Amino acid sequence: MALSDFGSAARNEAGIAAILPILKERFGDIFHASAAMRETHAHTTTYIPSQIPDGVLFARSTADVQEAVRICATHRVPLIPFGTGSSLEGHVNAPAGGISIDTSSMNRVLAVNAQDLDCTVEPGVTREALNTYLRDTGLFFPIDPGANASLGGMAATRASGTNAVRYGTMRENVIALEAVMADGEVVRTAQRARKSSAGYDLTRLLIGSEGTLGIITGLTLKLQGIPEAISGGVCPFPSVEAACDAVILTIQSGIPVARIELVNALQMRALKTYSKLDYPETPCLFLEFHGSPASVAEQAERFGEIAEEFGGGPFLWTVDAEERAKLWKARHDAYWASLTLRPGAKGLSTDVCVPISRLAECIRETEADIEQAGLIAPIVGHVGDGNFHTLVLIDTDDPSDILKAENFVARLNERALRMDGTCTGEHGIGQGKMKFLEAELGHGVAVMRAVKHALDPLNIMNPGKILLPRGV
Amino acid sequence: MALSDFGSAARNEAGIAAILPILKERFGDIFHASAAMRETHAHTTTYIPSQIPDGVLFARSTADVQEAVRICATHRVPLIPFGTGSSLEGHVNAPAGGISIDTSSMNRVLAVNAQDLDCTVEPGVTREALNTYLRDTGLFFPIDPGANASLGGMAATRASGTNAVRYGTMRENVIALEAVMADGEVVRTAQRARKSSAGYDLTRLLIGSEGTLGIITGLTLKLQGIPEAISGGVCPFPSVEAACDAVILTIQSGIPVARIELVNALQMRALKTYSKLDYPETPCLFLEFHGSPASVAEQAERFGEIAEEFGGGPFLWTVDAEERAKLWKARHDAYWASLTLRPGAKGLSTDVCVPISRLAECIRETEADIEQAGLIAPIVGHVGDGNFHTLVLIDTDDPSDILKAENFVARLNERALRMDGTCTGEHGIGQGKMKFLEAELGHGVAVMRAVKHALDPLNIMNPGKILLPRGV
Repeated sequence: MALSDFGSAARNEAGIAAILPILKERFGDIFHASAAMRETHAHTTTYIPSQIPDGVLFARSTADVQEAVRICATHRVPLIPFGTGSSLEGHVNAPAGGISIDTSSMNRVLAVNAQDLDCTVEPGVTREALNTYLRDTGLFFPIDPGANASLGGMAATRASGTNAVRYGTMRENVIALEAVMADGEVVRTAQRARKSSAGYDLTRLLIGSEGTLGIITGLTLKLQGIPEAISGGVCPFPSVEAACDAVILTIQSGIPVARIELVNALQMRALKTYSKLDYPETPCLFLEFHGSPASVAEQAERFGEIAEEFGGGPFLWTVDAEERAKLWKARHDAYWASLTLRPGAKGLSTDVCVPISRLAECIRETEADIEQAGLIAPIVGHVGDGNFHTLVLIDTDDPSDILKAENFVARLNERALRMDGTCTGEHGIGQGKMKFLEAELGHGVAVMRAVKHALDPLNIMNPGKILLPRGV
Repeated sequence: MALSDFGSAARNEAGIAAILPILKERFGDIFHASAAMRETHAHTTTYIPSQIPDGVLFARSTADVQEAVRICATHRVPLIPFGTGSSLEGHVNAPAGGISIDTSSMNRVLAVNAQDLDCTVEPGVTREALNTYLRDTGLFFPIDPGANASLGGMAATRASGTNAVRYGTMRENVIALEAVMADGEVVRTAQRARKSSAGYDLTRLLIGSEGTLGIITGLTLKLQGIPEAISGGVCPFPSVEAACDAVILTIQSGIPVARIELVNALQMRALKTYSKLDYPETPCLFLEFHGSPASVAEQAERFGEIAEEFGGGPFLWTVDAEERAKLWKARHDAYWASLTLRPGAKGLSTDVCVPISRLAECIRETEADIEQAGLIAPIVGHVGDGNFHTLVLIDTDDPSDILKAENFVARLNERALRMDGTCTGEHGIGQGKMKFLEAELGHGVAVMRAVKHALDPLNIMNPGKILLPRGV
């Protein structure tokens, strides 16, 4: 149980009672109100307590979503969009009850335009399903947040991951969205052209809006050519500072690194036991380079030289896919290895992001903070973007343990803000970070409120996320 | 004079009369109400008639802008932000009168963070001034819309230009904005971190809002390392189709081309006379590649092979800066050469953008349309993005000529929309394209209206741009 109050807005009991039979009658088998189904649509992947919706609709089409929105709007009942449930900040919770709109049945790839390097998909298509579908085209969708999330959910949280340093985040990789707005109208935010100066950027307004402005029902996405060659490997460093200095020089040198991940000493120690491999117990960078065979070799060699300048190395790298997978195994095992550091504990994942010139300082202060607080919290980071995660291992049955973790997270977020960073690089605000958003953007939050009120005057679109209730 | 009605909303005469002495008293020498000064702040670079503001404030600071907004808001008088006046769709006109906020005195580079590849500037800094300032840092700001525009204006119109195919547009190159909103409050849209999932994307909401939601008073911009080497050159093609096919394959092959510009046969004919050079009178592609010395040579060679596949060539290219300038001279002279095709005429520049798979078809139909309409309108294009310009040469004293041009532009924009493109790739909506925005985005325009009304309820921020008055 969490000590923080994540909000439980007043339920509109009369409205909820009114719509359940309407939805059942209208949608039949694709509408569920069983406790079991409702519970699986509020699970959160962190320690924020579940808040269960009153019903679950497995929408099959934009028209289904439209109709659900209109029914809910008439009775002022919340709608909570649901992709795969892998979000980390309570996005799919239903603090005021309402209907979970599960998009997993909207899982068709509608078009692949190979010449234009784009595709159009329904929101329930997962990133792995899309890349499987694209297998024979020579194209792929690069954004990789770790989980096999739905593309609708990834857009809603402005997700990114390990290769954002090269390919950008969802912000840069969505060309257009289709969404059902709070009034039940369907909006297509842009045409399929690569760029446009046609009015306000509704695409970017919806990306990262976490379902609070509209429900995404379609996406047109940029695709990338599968790189001809990939090189990758792992490189130890004497300190986090040395590793970060190498990252900065790598990026300044214009090496188009595809992935550059930091794993700190504590995480490496966990991995050593978990993966039964002979890793050094010092900070390591895991790297991947994409390009022509000549270019990926050149990039790896240049990085090796940079690492050496800062006392790092040896940089073990390869172009062989199998060998590369072995070298990267530690990075892939990081999450599971972390959990072995405190058996039975649950992980709370943070995701601050700072300018990379401040990254070493931010990680060093955070490591000291973790030690002083007596927490166990290994660190991995998408350091090319200045983004890193601590996985705080907590005993969710111990309120003092939760409090300790919550206080640490507050200090971490404040530290990032002080360094001109953000409290969330890629997970979103959800319920967990609402109070930090106010600290981060000041009057900007008032602007967000005005936009929210204009587009969702009844506050039925995923209420209780991003924006604290007024006056809190 | 234009035949189209670009709108001349009712002037609030009482409010305007009230604020002029207030602004003079408050701002003294930096506030101007002379006819001469007012006229230079309404000039438009196209045939849209000038609509002159009632006064011009040379703001020195965010505080000046805030105070002007508060005074204007109290008396319900419009504010029109002004950078260098190089916008193309009447953005700086004052259809309901009001005060031009000239930002040219806000021209300081406030910070350059070389390690983070970013900088923070005031809005009146021009792109050339910024790049001159950066000269010794090894960094540059890539967006190049042709004119030496102000960075505030470039953000306001979501500008791009010749190298967007590699570096993106203003949408991808602004990290954060500071803006004064209609209520006089200052918003900072984001921290300096490279990525963030913290709430609605206010940065992208303001980029492309053309001063209708707030006045940009500061920008944090991404910078790029100056490429170690540049290769470039020119390649003739037997047809626009062949050139476009080469563009598509170049991009599909993952060649990270920095510039890829199409010049059509009519434009080449004009250049032949104007530049006194022995150019072929067939469509040509002008290209530039950035990277390591080995890579720019490899890219140019690979492109040459692709060109040959489609009957193009010879591809004349070089890594020598002076030689490259010579090869690119035709592209740089294109605008002035065009004007010689019809001495005394004024140019109307269009900027549709379509998916590149439709580009050849769109240009071919447009060339036929131009011929059939009896217009003179050469074509140049940023074809890597699917974006091209026709420069329609019109006699602005001849209403039938203007009508002919306007009808052509309407057909061109409709053609682009039919091909899933946009009526504006980079110039913005302004006054000139308001009716096409409705055709392009349908209900999306209602969403924009709701956002506009929420953030500027008095409609004082650059009114009469982007959104047609309701009911039109």
